Amino acid sequence: MPQAESEPPAFQTVAIIGVGLIGGSLGLALKQRRLAKRVIGVTRRAETLQAALSCGAIDQGSHDPAEAVSEAALVFLCAPVKTIIEQLEAIKSSLPAGCLVTDVGSTKLEICSAASELLPTSVTFIGGHPMAGSEASGVAAARADLFEQATWLLTPTGGTPGASLDRLSSLISALGAKPLVMTPEEHDELTAAVSHIPHLLAAALVNLTTKVSEEHPEALEIAAGGFRDMTRIALGEPGIWRDVFLSNREAVLSQLVELKEEIERLADRMRDGDAEGLQQLLAEAAQARAKLNNRQ
Amino acid sequence: MPQAESEPPAFQTVAIIGVGLIGGSLGLALKQRRLAKRVIGVTRRAETLQAALSCGAIDQGSHDPAEAVSEAALVFLCAPVKTIIEQLEAIKSSLPAGCLVTDVGSTKLEICSAASELLPTSVTFIGGHPMAGSEASGVAAARADLFEQATWLLTPTGGTPGASLDRLSSLISALGAKPLVMTPEEHDELTAAVSHIPHLLAAALVNLTTKVSEEHPEALEIAAGGFRDMTRIALGEPGIWRDVFLSNREAVLSQLVELKEEIERLADRMRDGDAEGLQQLLAEAAQARAKLNNRQ
Repeated sequence: MPQAESEPPAFQTVAIIGVGLIGGSLGLALKQRRLAKRVIGVTRRAETLQAALSCGAIDQGSHDPAEAVSEAALVFLCAPVKTIIEQLEAIKSSLPAGCLVTDVGSTKLEICSAASELLPTSVTFIGGHPMAGSEASGVAAARADLFEQATWLLTPTGGTPGASLDRLSSLISALGAKPLVMTPEEHDELTAAVSHIPHLLAAALVNLTTKVSEEHPEALEIAAGGFRDMTRIALGEPGIWRDVFLSNREAVLSQLVELKEEIERLADRMRDGDAEGLQQLLAEAAQARAKLNNRQ
Repeated sequence: MPQAESEPPAFQTVAIIGVGLIGGSLGLALKQRRLAKRVIGVTRRAETLQAALSCGAIDQGSHDPAEAVSEAALVFLCAPVKTIIEQLEAIKSSLPAGCLVTDVGSTKLEICSAASELLPTSVTFIGGHPMAGSEASGVAAARADLFEQATWLLTPTGGTPGASLDRLSSLISALGAKPLVMTPEEHDELTAAVSHIPHLLAAALVNLTTKVSEEHPEALEIAAGGFRDMTRIALGEPGIWRDVFLSNREAVLSQLVELKEEIERLADRMRDGDAEGLQQLLAEAAQARAKLNNRQ
């Protein structure tokens, strides 16, 4: 029976490979909004499966990704970038024909290339990246409303069937998020600018301050709110970020060249004592940043 | 009559030149904690004086800095860096002998040099810099508790009488803040690392994103919490920051060389695909940043 247009698209069986903060929140949201009849969750650790079952994020647990996807109409790969590629390898021979596979990894070009190389042509892969998260991690921190109002990037390629993209977009809207479609290349270039480069700068800034504080321990006393805000993202899990940087190194290194030009424009005006030019650049930044405040 | 040691040092007349967020909060705190018998506030605008009088931040208002300091035992210069130097010029011939003069400017070397050049030897100047503030500004945002628990940097020089430094330190402790003594050179080097360089990076990052968003407007959609935290300081008043950068340009440009080395260490490991080395640098940053959380 065809669904009425106002009905959200419900899937019979959804497999979530990796039930941490994102995978767990996804399970909770799918169940709460009745978007999946059955959610199967896969993790390595028995305690995590138990916790996911107890909080209602999944209906059924498994330690075997291949087994878990064998009846799935939709598969979410929820892990750091490198692990997602291992997951693709693990499920590739067990996916039912017509299955829709997506992921939530922080980079897209490497994952989409791996999917196109590894997965059979009988299934459709569409890269995904919800711009949501929190400093907390693990299924214990999962929340059904984690994706509400969050932008959720989708990166189809030339070969992606339009109907599959529509179905995944509708599901993401039904989860309360805002789907935004772009190519894997665009995704990696934009996240390099607004996510990966900021992380790299925060790490460099903290490491500079560590060096300064070896000679002047007072440096840490005077690191006030602005410094703390600015470097908070450097608290991110080093192993996950290492893989993000390595996976997206071309875009990050290329944006870094641009960033250094922006830094030099400011530094040049300082060197030249060009008060007007310096104020102009600072004012442009202040205005652009204020617009960002107005967006939300 | 000598004060008992437990008594905070009360001043007969305190002049505050510039009654905005900092000057106004200072007046409120001095009055509330009974650290000044009389507070005279100076601003150009009549409405600001009226507001400062109404909220009890000052007992008496004036538009003339020279007149206001003529009976003061203690003078606070509360303005952006360049204006403080103009204030020194304006008050230099009217300061009573024995008067203690201090300021709250964001850089210290230029101000302390100007004070030593301009002020008569019959008065003592000690540079100051409370590490407190807020995104709000103006006397309407003034709060008596603004300095509570804040680090307040003091930068005496070789010629500063020990008794004057002790008296100012005690007053600052009595205001609820934590005085921290260093040389003007150290002050400017440390604030370059933990305040001025972060501001410069935030501005460069926003300007990079503006450039990227000209081709890809989606960049602004995906600028999530981390990016917003990281660039919040770029909202600061461009004219004030222009003067901070110009006043402290030697230290900022020299720290910038160090920062670029830290960035290159990360970039080199990306280029080399050195996963272990990259993770090491990110882990050092995460650990150092976590220690900062534990401090407060």
